[in-house]
Amino acid sequence: MQRVEVGVLGGTGMVGQHFIKFLDGHPWFELTWLGASARSAGKKYADAATWHLNGIPPERISAMMVREAMPGNAPKLLFSAMDSSVATEIEQAFAQAGHVVVSNSRNHRMERDVPLLVPEINAEHLRIIPAQQKARGWKGQIVTNPNCSTVVLTMALAPLKAFGIRRVIATTMQAISGAGYPGVSSVDINANVVPYIGNEEEKMQEETQKILGSYERDVITPLDAKVSAHCNRVPVLDGHTVTISVELATKPTHAQMLAAFAEFAGVPQERKLPSAPARPVQYMEQADRPQPRKDVERDRGMAVFLGRLRPCPVLDWKFIALGHNTIRGAAGAAVLNAELMHSEGLLD
Amino acid sequence: MQRVEVGVLGGTGMVGQHFIKFLDGHPWFELTWLGASARSAGKKYADAATWHLNGIPPERISAMMVREAMPGNAPKLLFSAMDSSVATEIEQAFAQAGHVVVSNSRNHRMERDVPLLVPEINAEHLRIIPAQQKARGWKGQIVTNPNCSTVVLTMALAPLKAFGIRRVIATTMQAISGAGYPGVSSVDINANVVPYIGNEEEKMQEETQKILGSYERDVITPLDAKVSAHCNRVPVLDGHTVTISVELATKPTHAQMLAAFAEFAGVPQERKLPSAPARPVQYMEQADRPQPRKDVERDRGMAVFLGRLRPCPVLDWKFIALGHNTIRGAAGAAVLNAELMHSEGLLD
Amino acid sequence: MQRVEVGVLGGTGMVGQHFIKFLDGHPWFELTWLGASARSAGKKYADAATWHLNGIPPERISAMMVREAMPGNAPKLLFSAMDSSVATEIEQAFAQAGHVVVSNSRNHRMERDVPLLVPEINAEHLRIIPAQQKARGWKGQIVTNPNCSTVVLTMALAPLKAFGIRRVIATTMQAISGAGYPGVSSVDINANVVPYIGNEEEKMQEETQKILGSYERDVITPLDAKVSAHCNRVPVLDGHTVTISVELATKPTHAQMLAAFAEFAGVPQERKLPSAPARPVQYMEQADRPQPRKDVERDRGMAVFLGRLRPCPVLDWKFIALGHNTIRGAAGAAVLNAELMHSEGLLD
Amino acid sequence: MQRVEVGVLGGTGMVGQHFIKFLDGHPWFELTWLGASARSAGKKYADAATWHLNGIPPERISAMMVREAMPGNAPKLLFSAMDSSVATEIEQAFAQAGHVVVSNSRNHRMERDVPLLVPEINAEHLRIIPAQQKARGWKGQIVTNPNCSTVVLTMALAPLKAFGIRRVIATTMQAISGAGYPGVSSVDINANVVPYIGNEEEKMQEETQKILGSYERDVITPLDAKVSAHCNRVPVLDGHTVTISVELATKPTHAQMLAAFAEFAGVPQERKLPSAPARPVQYMEQADRPQPRKDVERDRGMAVFLGRLRPCPVLDWKFIALGHNTIRGAAGAAVLNAELMHSEGLLD
Repeated sequence: MQRVEVGVLGGTGMVGQHFIKFLDGHPWFELTWLGASARSAGKKYADAATWHLNGIPPERISAMMVREAMPGNAPKLLFSAMDSSVATEIEQAFAQAGHVVVSNSRNHRMERDVPLLVPEINAEHLRIIPAQQKARGWKGQIVTNPNCSTVVLTMALAPLKAFGIRRVIATTMQAISGAGYPGVSSVDINANVVPYIGNEEEKMQEETQKILGSYERDVITPLDAKVSAHCNRVPVLDGHTVTISVELATKPTHAQMLAAFAEFAGVPQERKLPSAPARPVQYMEQADRPQPRKDVERDRGMAVFLGRLRPCPVLDWKFIALGHNTIRGAAGAAVLNAELMHSEGLLD
Repeated sequence: MQRVEVGVLGGTGMVGQHFIKFLDGHPWFELTWLGASARSAGKKYADAATWHLNGIPPERISAMMVREAMPGNAPKLLFSAMDSSVATEIEQAFAQAGHVVVSNSRNHRMERDVPLLVPEINAEHLRIIPAQQKARGWKGQIVTNPNCSTVVLTMALAPLKAFGIRRVIATTMQAISGAGYPGVSSVDINANVVPYIGNEEEKMQEETQKILGSYERDVITPLDAKVSAHCNRVPVLDGHTVTISVELATKPTHAQMLAAFAEFAGVPQERKLPSAPARPVQYMEQADRPQPRKDVERDRGMAVFLGRLRPCPVLDWKFIALGHNTIRGAAGAAVLNAELMHSEGLLD
Repeated sequence: MQRVEVGVLGGTGMVGQHFIKFLDGHPWFELTWLGASARSAGKKYADAATWHLNGIPPERISAMMVREAMPGNAPKLLFSAMDSSVATEIEQAFAQAGHVVVSNSRNHRMERDVPLLVPEINAEHLRIIPAQQKARGWKGQIVTNPNCSTVVLTMALAPLKAFGIRRVIATTMQAISGAGYPGVSSVDINANVVPYIGNEEEKMQEETQKILGSYERDVITPLDAKVSAHCNRVPVLDGHTVTISVELATKPTHAQMLAAFAEFAGVPQERKLPSAPARPVQYMEQADRPQPRKDVERDRGMAVFLGRLRPCPVLDWKFIALGHNTIRGAAGAAVLNAELMHSEGLLD
Repeated sequence: MQRVEVGVLGGTGMVGQHFIKFLDGHPWFELTWLGASARSAGKKYADAATWHLNGIPPERISAMMVREAMPGNAPKLLFSAMDSSVATEIEQAFAQAGHVVVSNSRNHRMERDVPLLVPEINAEHLRIIPAQQKARGWKGQIVTNPNCSTVVLTMALAPLKAFGIRRVIATTMQAISGAGYPGVSSVDINANVVPYIGNEEEKMQEETQKILGSYERDVITPLDAKVSAHCNRVPVLDGHTVTISVELATKPTHAQMLAAFAEFAGVPQERKLPSAPARPVQYMEQADRPQPRKDVERDRGMAVFLGRLRPCPVLDWKFIALGHNTIRGAAGAAVLNAELMHSEGLLD
């Protein structure tokens, strides 16, 4: 099979590096274009970027020339790892020019005609794209994935949607890699907890409602559930852990909750998309799991792990969720979005 | 002033070491007796115990002889740092023999005639002691302090009691020192979160209700509020951080909440007990505080620090609390209990 | 090809778990037997052992029955992960009974007729086995791999042997996984350095001389070089980092040093043994590499990474070395030893 | 006694904060002036600076107005915490204008007429000041303290100077606070070792020779000893740990070494300077000490702790040293320098 050529906007930053790593060896997509600022353009990737991830960059990428992030010679499908300070205009310019922009940036997530996709949960939100193109006069389009902590929460809640999600209180313990590079100073986080992440709680609260919302006739209606988030940074490299208390309308039993988690699957699993985990939500029976350092790399970082389901004296049930913030919560999320779109013929 | 001689039961363990450190230089109490198992008895403290805390033990203590933990030659006032596996019988034997046992062990905390004291909150619970002595035929008595995470939660909630506490959801991020020595293996907690601490959630839930409860005619009636705890271990040395969402009957404003925190004080502050912090609850205005490593040692580890008060979309208000688990949550808590008792003439 | 059945002695401990993980999917060896103490025998592995490594144990192993560690029904080839407190007699009993014991324990390493193998360095030391069997009246045999920190040092020095190694000063910064489970208490190592590891310096010093020594007519003569080690524990999960200063007889140039590192290879590379890294010693050009967390998993943990070669004002050259202590320094080392032996027909 | 007014140049940065903290409550010096860049000048300190140290800034300082770092209204005695990118010219301007600049910056350390002071070691190097003033035409002067890792090494070596120091190999494990703020990214150092600190090895090598050197007739002659340093960053907050191997001309015994450490003292101890530790070098008998997190705060961070003295198979002796990098290695070092100068009447 001929692989589809893809590019990464913002390829020299840390999120861009996650895209490069995740796309390495991808069966459908071949990374052939790296876009960055004018300062980096014209340099070999190895000279333009300092690699911040574990390991070293793929040799093929190190030798690749970085281009300026402007429409023109880029492939049709672009993953955007642009910093939010510049993403709005650049992403729009590419969409205007006919590109499919699959973005990890937060800039367009909450716009009414932009899908905020989690393929297992709301694949049908893609149907809003024609309305987006019409309203904006674009040949291309912009599709987004959620904030890294939102993905973990929504994957944990989606199996419970049929029980009627009414109220959710979540506390996160988020990994340092979520803050990018240089991100959090070691002087601040060494053997410490920082109980604040700018705008993170607001994003978790509103993005969750949109993702779990319903699509009908070009309108995405947010889920009518109350969501409260407490966001914290902890000295963990990768993996956001979330404690969740949830109130459910139909008062499911423990067994019904577990069954809902076990049976949860979506379009990516049906179509066996390359980056889809066989079981997107995995409940662990051990008393003290999941744990970020021990579980985050399992299933290539694309599954969300749950544990410790027990009654909540205040709401109905409480449990733990864990997901890989830079894979399932960023690069892997966007690639899975593109795989979904490709499987629907939307990249042709 | 003549200082009161005191002893520590279980002086060689890690909690015992916290007592030794906290009592060093105490203006009212002089540590003159260290009780431990038969195995340690007869040895110099320096030979019987390996010091696990930062720094080194006081020279005077290193040279002190360890005694067997049996009634007989011990001072009247004893702090118990006994492991819960043996505390029940030993503490009872000392109380039977006329000692005032101020215990950090969990064994007697939830018994109906044992005060579970936090002097700023429920000093009047001490009035149950005569009933305890009568029912058990003891000349002495047992008084307890709460679990380390409970202290942080109850100090944060006590100022709100007048608003009518209805429901509380709390998530802890607890320090490794709370697990004693050797406690948590570094292989388990290095750059990781362990989302489980045995029996901790149950303790936080029921102890909180008892502490905030009311005393009347030899009965302590627990507070009728629902409390749900999610307990986690994080790679922090000292200091338990707690995220709190709370529902309050009288719907106080933000200003009323802050005023309640600012004005909170109790018997220890009135009487200026030696270990009482001037302001037992301190609200920090900075967006990202309190933080365990940066704030836990302030005010000798005896204050509880709060921050980030903001509306909770699910309950009424949410905020952060932090306290020193081995000081305010263990050794310092017990010493403050004894200071309260001494100030009431109960040690005479 | 029919795979060779193998067993693990001490399969429930942490080193045993590293063997299980490393052997999973091995092309030549199939793990079919797990031996442990009488207490574990007769239980399913999942019930007998708590998994301490990242991830979860292979399903096939979880369902396997644990056997008592006694000769009888075990496969011929056994990897020993026995604790050193019991390894001596059990390993000898198996060797006596005809088994090939490929041991990671320290007990027999320094015995004169036991090979202390690093296949890239001293494959010819295997030739002492007939003398071992004759002297001890064994049908079987015992072959050992070095201490985890020794492997890193010897792999770094072996390429320089031709230059005449005279004096070496090495300081280690060793990972917590090297101490097993529960190993180092988190209270001791959190945000700390422990500048002492029992007997580690002695092992590094004498094992290095033996490994780099020469074999002739049933005698292994240690290398006549002075080696001084400073061993420290640091809060790193996997990977021992070593700073090395070395004096060399022939005073090689910087280019000659780099060429020696680049060209270094041995029998495992010639025979393309399954666990052999293509390049056993890899020099990194970056100014701040290798680093344990970033490099230790590369090449399946079987290569040793070097960096920062520069003149030493006291000896001749100084540089950094890094290796994976539980793979290249333990389970992987033993498996490579067995692969070497299999490739020589010694397992038939 | 009237306290001497002092100022801090670069008071808003992290080193400046260490000066503020260390000077709080100083018996001789009163901090009355904070100089910073024009951007901060005119603001209250609390508004101009984000506090990065544990705890909170002294209230008096928070309310103080920051001034522009230009000669004019500043006190005679100034501590310089200027970043090295700007320190050269600013410090010289103040010296020219008659100020006594006691600097922690590296800029002037190695200049031939500038004392690189460690008061216990080379108080007599102050005698070069008249030559400095004459050569440069200054009414004022510049005095410097060493790099943070150099202080630890020189304090450990100074007691051995009488034995004839010939060769030294040292490996450091340095705390993150040594890199300032934001300094080292948490993504780089979490559960990791970074085996490189820019220019640190060169500084340790040449500064050590100058500090241990001799003063005669306006010339400081470096010690004729070879020094080789390997510098590493580890995830520790405060405290640089150093492994040291040393060759000594007179071949002292173990007892002579220990005696030299125990007896070591200098001018600060004779004169009982306020920040002088009673015993500047303290040998610990425990097998696994000193350790940074456990020992670094002892004696107010002004002593250097040693341990594990044992024969070195390559040089003569090896041992461990530990010192507080931001106190003994920075702010405390400069304040002790000023105390020495004050005790000699040089500030009048």
